[in-house]
Formats: sequence, structure tokens, C-alpha cells
Amino acid sequence: MSPHSSLATLLLSCPDRTGLVSRISHFIFERGGNILDLDEHVDRESGKFFIRVSWNMDGFSIPSDELESAFGPLAREFGAQWRIHAAERRHRVAIFVSRYDHCLQDILWRHRAGELDIDIPLIISNHPDLEPLARYYGIAYHVFPVTPDNKREQEERELQLLGEHEIDTVVLARYMQVLSERFVAEMPERIINIHHSFLPAFSGASPYRQAYERGVKIIGATSHYVTSELDEGPIIEQDIVRVSHRDAVRDMIRKGRDLERLVLARALSLHVEHRVLCNGRKTIVFE
Amino acid sequence: MSPHSSLATLLLSCPDRTGLVSRISHFIFERGGNILDLDEHVDRESGKFFIRVSWNMDGFSIPSDELESAFGPLAREFGAQWRIHAAERRHRVAIFVSRYDHCLQDILWRHRAGELDIDIPLIISNHPDLEPLARYYGIAYHVFPVTPDNKREQEERELQLLGEHEIDTVVLARYMQVLSERFVAEMPERIINIHHSFLPAFSGASPYRQAYERGVKIIGATSHYVTSELDEGPIIEQDIVRVSHRDAVRDMIRKGRDLERLVLARALSLHVEHRVLCNGRKTIVFE
Amino acid sequence: MSPHSSLATLLLSCPDRTGLVSRISHFIFERGGNILDLDEHVDRESGKFFIRVSWNMDGFSIPSDELESAFGPLAREFGAQWRIHAAERRHRVAIFVSRYDHCLQDILWRHRAGELDIDIPLIISNHPDLEPLARYYGIAYHVFPVTPDNKREQEERELQLLGEHEIDTVVLARYMQVLSERFVAEMPERIINIHHSFLPAFSGASPYRQAYERGVKIIGATSHYVTSELDEGPIIEQDIVRVSHRDAVRDMIRKGRDLERLVLARALSLHVEHRVLCNGRKTIVFE
Amino acid sequence: MSPHSSLATLLLSCPDRTGLVSRISHFIFERGGNILDLDEHVDRESGKFFIRVSWNMDGFSIPSDELESAFGPLAREFGAQWRIHAAERRHRVAIFVSRYDHCLQDILWRHRAGELDIDIPLIISNHPDLEPLARYYGIAYHVFPVTPDNKREQEERELQLLGEHEIDTVVLARYMQVLSERFVAEMPERIINIHHSFLPAFSGASPYRQAYERGVKIIGATSHYVTSELDEGPIIEQDIVRVSHRDAVRDMIRKGRDLERLVLARALSLHVEHRVLCNGRKTIVFE
Repeated sequence: MSPHSSLATLLLSCPDRTGLVSRISHFIFERGGNILDLDEHVDRESGKFFIRVSWNMDGFSIPSDELESAFGPLAREFGAQWRIHAAERRHRVAIFVSRYDHCLQDILWRHRAGELDIDIPLIISNHPDLEPLARYYGIAYHVFPVTPDNKREQEERELQLLGEHEIDTVVLARYMQVLSERFVAEMPERIINIHHSFLPAFSGASPYRQAYERGVKIIGATSHYVTSELDEGPIIEQDIVRVSHRDAVRDMIRKGRDLERLVLARALSLHVEHRVLCNGRKTIVFE
Repeated sequence: MSPHSSLATLLLSCPDRTGLVSRISHFIFERGGNILDLDEHVDRESGKFFIRVSWNMDGFSIPSDELESAFGPLAREFGAQWRIHAAERRHRVAIFVSRYDHCLQDILWRHRAGELDIDIPLIISNHPDLEPLARYYGIAYHVFPVTPDNKREQEERELQLLGEHEIDTVVLARYMQVLSERFVAEMPERIINIHHSFLPAFSGASPYRQAYERGVKIIGATSHYVTSELDEGPIIEQDIVRVSHRDAVRDMIRKGRDLERLVLARALSLHVEHRVLCNGRKTIVFE
Repeated sequence: MSPHSSLATLLLSCPDRTGLVSRISHFIFERGGNILDLDEHVDRESGKFFIRVSWNMDGFSIPSDELESAFGPLAREFGAQWRIHAAERRHRVAIFVSRYDHCLQDILWRHRAGELDIDIPLIISNHPDLEPLARYYGIAYHVFPVTPDNKREQEERELQLLGEHEIDTVVLARYMQVLSERFVAEMPERIINIHHSFLPAFSGASPYRQAYERGVKIIGATSHYVTSELDEGPIIEQDIVRVSHRDAVRDMIRKGRDLERLVLARALSLHVEHRVLCNGRKTIVFE
Repeated sequence: MSPHSSLATLLLSCPDRTGLVSRISHFIFERGGNILDLDEHVDRESGKFFIRVSWNMDGFSIPSDELESAFGPLAREFGAQWRIHAAERRHRVAIFVSRYDHCLQDILWRHRAGELDIDIPLIISNHPDLEPLARYYGIAYHVFPVTPDNKREQEERELQLLGEHEIDTVVLARYMQVLSERFVAEMPERIINIHHSFLPAFSGASPYRQAYERGVKIIGATSHYVTSELDEGPIIEQDIVRVSHRDAVRDMIRKGRDLERLVLARALSLHVEHRVLCNGRKTIVFE
């Protein structure tokens, strides 16, 4: 099915120094790997080195499950943040939703269409509304109503569920609850949100109403990693659409839905293909 | 040269009521005018009516110079803000610049290429740098160095010069001085600025640096009418371009230059073709 | 639900002459209608006049069902092609599909989301595959397998079904059968197709393969009215997406799906909002 | 001035095999070079390997002028097509024009603005019209009127002139003459043209007229390498702009000018930054 079924991908960042590409590519070469894709970037301002490299595992002298231990020493020498992904294990994603269905709809459809090489073991919501959609796609749907009083314990139960299902990434598909700092801290750079504005413009509530009041000619959507600062996390992807004086708030919401689902889907796909690295509050995206 | 040489254009806004289109189109019809373009919009939120209509003046029973007096009574009855433009008199534009040449370059080239059906009697700057460019295009270039001390009197002299040349519209083509409230009040909805960001994001100074720091994936430019509130005037046109982690501030400035000149040129052309009406802090743009 | 529930819309084209706007707006005015939207265009090359006007039917002196007979005489005098749509009766759309589900998925989702103010009484397909999707949205799904031998009679039965359900418009949502001239002649300017290329580039079969072979940097999708000439009908809407050397045909197909569904949805919505008029093999689209 | 003043860049393609990245990066590493940018691609269909790598020459153990001889053996072993560019020598570009000035204007302005790290020793034209523009920018302007009779000898003289000035790349900035096969063969993948349509749509003459007749909703421009087949060379860059029924051919030409100059400028800048490799009739563009 997937074109990448026999690939391994290394995503790594560390302080820049000479020889990094040579050492990493040699590590792959001497074990019989053929590099199919390599993208590298040095951020001169921070003096940091970023690389994404994928190679063919056919005839590689190390089995997938030993890759990490084999590469570990090199990574430690570089003082690197890194992860290696071998295609045997599919990325596992949980989707959080509330009442809006367009982003969920889109992700589930793409998943079934084979666009996303991931597993979606479960959907979590604070409302029962979208359960029929989940059932249509045959995915478990868990409802956790959230109130100021029960928020902490509900998040506990959600985190436990994510743990049981070995979830790698959480997607907030227009989930209308703000996650607690504790929750976010549990999954750094692993929670993806879609904000319905061209951040940093119109952060916070009712961005379409704000955009309408300001009379902008273009509206946008922004997908970013969730951090403890609301709407301030590293941006993965953004896109825009033109509006005019003929567009009421209602029309902006309609046009925005198309943006939101496309931008979130693109961000998710970049993330699960291991194309995104964080550089402080910014991202490196190897497209 | 111009395709509109025998057209008259009415731009009007007033409180909405029944019969406005009928009355206006009848006014034109009974004087033998043939309507070539009519665009109308009712803003239900404000209950205001906006219209742009152009008609052929060939065989029209009233000469151009009597159009305003002939239409006046109807406009007063409607309680309208309005203007009629007959093609005989070309719109007169003055350009304000400082040291950046890209926007000026672009406007002057378009003007010579026949894209802008206007006269540009003069260019005003607080620096002598762009005088050679003005000379190449054969346009008078006036230098008014501005300091905190002489600002008021320099603006006086600039306004006088604009008056002598019967300037209709002032274009701030990356003019790096903030005009005083007094100056702005002299030319309401007749001063067009280009801001090098996707307003309201990154208003104020160094927008590209701000965009770089925030790690956005798209940068923009915004052309708006100048009001007493900095960067808060009604937006005429905006556009964007994608950026990535590979783009340093220097690259954003370079990419932004292309945006700035295109967005300003589009806004200017919409304005001088009488396609823009203000609705509070927003614009109606009849494209 | 719909913001247009009390509107009437006239769509008209005829040879240009003076007074058309005045006569038409007066017809509305003297019956107590308030024009909310009017867009007009004169094509100087063909000397044809095109108009779309909507007005508020509240307190209009003629009931919706007598609008056509009341306007008839004026239309005949103008020698016009025209139709009036009063919001009481919703536009009725049938969707034709084969095996690809993305366009159908998108239209049905938009319909349920309230984006399309239409009825969708039935879906017709030459394959049973998408029946579950139709059932999920509660829409009748009719299968007509087509072979060279039975094509004529199957089309007969399809046309009969369309007649029974008073279908106004047929949408070919990646329907992989070429309709016969007879079928097309039955519904002039009422069959909308989506072609998965930027027409006229790559017409015919396998456009993505063709695009890949040519090495274009942008691919597109085109929605047009179906005529007897394949891929030659009047274009309603087009859009594009960037591709690179990294995109295999598979990737172009994936990226193209997003284009196809968005472009078809936009074209359908323009059509059912009565914003599209044909001018020979071209369209006038009043957005 | 330029951010790349101490960089060397290798652009290479060859049959794919394991170890290529490792061998190339090691070659740079063991001579003390620090890789700042590396982009690599394997085309699985053709089994070809493509790479662009730039490194810092500060403290590199080989002087720039010995780079080629030092890398030669490795390249021969790989059976590679390749070139190494050291920033000491600036790329030398000649521009061919006829009467349209917009593309020339834009390139010369960008050059002066420091956007293009190249030398432009001369401009060649078959008309004297644009000589004042060349003079304004202080660039030699040579006129070679071309007729069917003198075409061959004029091209001879042009080629000689290009040779004398050690021209690396020729830019056809709306040059209205078709170059002979002989001329093109002299500079393979070194002649860049701008075609004023979204190729392969509307190749040949009057593309805007063709686009107008067809009623497309989007027009484009295409920059490509010139080959012996007209409008069939490898595409470097394309872009588009929306048009509507309101746009006459004149308007498409106006809108198209903005596209043409932007697309050509982007293609030229990609080419002179050594980001473009040809793969048969397609290009690999390392942005």
C-alpha cells in the first residue's frame, strides 16, 4: 500500500559542527543503506544543525528494532535531539473533537483513502454528537464531558487511555476545550491544533468575527504544536483564502472550514511523515 | 489609448431604501446614457447602500462638466456621499517616497506602460536619493527633509504644493515618515499607504523581523487608507507569499518587496478607477 | 436556515441596448421589491448584456409563482434568455458517480453542513461501490451498469428518473462514463463536470500522468458545463496547486483530489445560486 | 553584500547507487568544509541521483580554482554530470530583448537591488527601443536586427559576443525571435525563456488571445530552458493569476506582464543559484 514500507527515517537536530552529514551518511552507508531522501539545514542564527534522512532498509545490516541502540552513541556524541522511525511500526494518532465535524470528516476520509500512513485507534470528545461519523469509519469514540470541576480527572482518564493505546500524536480537530498545562507537558511537540485564523492575527476567540470587524481581504488558518501559551506554539502550516465585502461572518466561517481541514490535514501529514523539527518556538519543515 | 475615454462613473453610498437602483439607472437612461457596468451592494448590518455605475457618455444629453450639478438634487434626496468622475479629467496622483525605490519604480513603470489612467505631476520625498529615477521618467521631484522641529512647516509646504497641482490622491510608496493628524485630515480617504505585513498581524515597526521571530509560514502586505490611527485605516487590498525556515529576515524583505509593489499598485489602480468605497473602517471594493 | 429564504433572483442575457437596467430595476421597484444585489456586465465584443439581480420578496406585490408570467412580456421585448428563481422552491440536484468517492463525499458533507441550499433526491452510479456513503447521508442510490450495448437504454432510464424527480441540475462527480449527445442535449447548461486538469492542458485521459511526463510545476482542476464536445464546454471554475520533482503521479493524484472536490463544490454552488450565465463557449460568473 | 560570498556549491546528477552522499560529504569533510545546505533526490523511475550541496570555503584545504580538478576523479567514478561553483567568480548573464520592457526592467531593477548575485555584461536586442533603459542601468546594449536573410550571420555575431564576454547564461526576456537549432545547441540548458501562458496550454502565438477565446478562469506564465522544440523545453517555474469575464485580452496582457516578470525572475534566480538540474525534459529544482 504505502510507498515507504521499507524505509527508515532519521530526524535529528544538534549544535552545528563540521562532518555531521558525513558521519551520519557514513553510518547508513557502511550498513548497506541507500539514502533516498536527505534534507539538511543549518540555522546560522542559532548555530543549530537539522537533518532528515530516509534510506532503504532492504539489505540493511541492522534490523529495525535495533536501529535506535545502534545510532545512540553517535547521537550522544553530537548532543542531539533525535528519533528514528522504521516503517514497520505505524504512527498512532488520537483525534480530539467537540461538535464541528469538518476536520474529523476530512482526516477520517483521507485515512481511509490511504493518504495517511497511520493508525487511528480512537477518537475522544467532550460531546456525543460525532459518534455516528466515528462509527461509519469504524473507529472507537470515547466521550469525556468536561466541566471546570471534573476537568483534571477527565484529563487523567484521557491520558491513561492514550497510554493504553500507545498514542504518539494527538490531533485537536476543532476541540473546544483548552488542555491543561499538565496535559500538554505530557506530550511535548506531539499535540497538533488547528486555529481558525492567520496567526498571530486574531488569536483567541471568534477570529472570524474579529476578521470581519477589521475588514481584512484575506482570512487564514494555522496549524501549530500546542504549548502552555495559548495560540503561541510553533507553527507547522498556514494557508489563506480571499474574502470580500460580500462575505458576512457566516461566509467567512464557511470559507474558513475548507481552510481549516486542508491546513490541519497537511500539518498532520507533515508531522507523521517526520518532516517537522522544532527550533525554539519555530519549526523546520522538510517538505 | 484608454478603453474608458468616453465613460462617466458614479460612486455613491447612502442609507438603503427601495428604488435606489431604479432612480439612479433611470437618471442615466432618460439622458440617453447606456450603462456598461453596474455593481451594487447592500450591507445589511449597517443598512447602507453602495453602488458603482459607469455609462457611455456618447450622446448623453448633459456635458461632463454639468454632471455633478445635474445629479446633485437626487444625491441630496438620498442623503448620499458620492462623486461622479467623467473621463475628460484624469485623476491626479502625488507619490511620497523615502529611500526604497521598488514601489515607486513599479508605479512609474506601470504609468508609462499605460496601466494607470492618471497624471503624476510630482513626487515628494524626505531624501534626495530617488531623484534620478524620477528624472528618468520625467517627473518633478521635490525634497522636503523632515525633522521633529520642521515637520509642521514642511507638511504645510507639501500641502500647498499638492493644492497648487490639484492633487486628488497621495500614495505613500514606502514613505518612512508618519503624517500628522492635521495632514491626514486634509485628505480623508485620499491617502493610500502600503504596510509590509499582513495587517493586523505585525503592525508597527520591523514587521519582517517580527514575522521571522514568530516563525510564520506566510508573510503579507497590506494597502490601506491612512487615518489618524497608525496601521488601522480601511484595508483596500492584501496579498501573501509563502516563506520557510530557509528564509532569513533578508529573504523575507526581498520576497516582501514583490508583494508590496504589487499590492500597492493594485490598490492604487482600484482607487483611481473609482472602485473603492469606505464603510466605516472597512472598504467596499467593486472589482 | 438559509440567509436567502425571502429572495427572488433574476438571471438574464439579451442583446445590449440603453435602458435595460432602468427597465428591469423599475419592474422590481414598482412592485415594492428592494434590490439587495445587482451585478451587470456588457460584453462589448458580442454586444450582449448580462444581469443578475436579487430582491427582497417581503411585501412584493406579486406572489412567487406569478413572477415568471409577470416578467415574461418584458423579457420577450428584450429578446432575452432568462430565468427567475424564487427561494420557495429549492434547486434539485442529482449526482452521478462511479468509484471515486472524494467529490461525492464533499458535496454530501457540504449539503448536510447547510452550505448548499439545494435538494439532492438521488445519486446515480454505474457501480454499487458508493452505496454505503449514500446511505450514511440518507440519499437514494440507483445503480445503472453501463455497457456499449445497453448504454442507450440505461440513459433513457436515467433521464426518466431525473424527470420523475424534477431534477434541475446533474453533477458528474468523477463519473467515468461519457454521456451521449442525446443525453447532453436534454439538459443544456445543466450538467456540471469536474475534469482533473487545468483545461485546456491535458484534456482527455490520464491528465496527471500527462502532467507528470511534461514536468509541470503546477497542476489544476476544471469544472465546466458538459457539451457534445468532450472537455470543451464553458468553464465555470478552475484552481491549481503547486507540485515539484518530489511528486510522483500518485502524489499528483492525491493533491488533485483536494482540488477536484473544492473546484466542483465551488462551481456547483455558483450554479445553484444562479451566478453563472453562458456566453457562447464561455461563462459570465457573477461572484 | 551577498550572503554566499564564501560558499562553494556542487550540483551533480548520476546513476543512483549506495554511498553517494557519504562519499561526497566525506570529500568535503576531510578537506575541512562545513556543509551549510544539502538537498538530495533519487528519481526512482529513472534510477537517477541528484544532489545540491553547499559548504563554507573558510579554512577549506583546497583553493577555489582547484576545486574542479580535485573533485574530478570522484565525479568520473560516479559517471556524473556536474559542476562546482565557487562564489569568487560571479555568474555572467546576457539578456535578449525585443520591444517589451517589463521583464528587462524587472531583472535590471533586481540586479541593482542586489537580489541577483550575477554580472550582466550586455543586453542584445533586434530593436533599438530599449537602449535608454539599458543606459539608465549602465549596461551595454547591442542591436542585431534580424531578417530571414541575415539571421544566421547575426546569430554568429551574437554567439561571438557571448563568447568574448564569457557569458554563462542567456535570458530571453520576451525576445520575439526564435533562435536557430545551431544557436540553442551552443548553450544547452543555459538559455532561459519566458512563455506567456501556462504551458502546455496555449503554446505558440497569441496565448492571451487563445486564453480569452477559451474562457479560462486562470492564466499563467512559464519559464523554461530553450530546446530545439519550441515551448517544449524543461519547465523551471510557473505561476498563475485569476481572470474573469470582465477581463478583455488587453487586461489579460496587463495581468500577464506581472506574472511574466515574476516567473522569469524566479527562474533566473533559481538557475544562477545552481538550484536547477535537468532530468530529461523535466527539472529538479532544489528550492
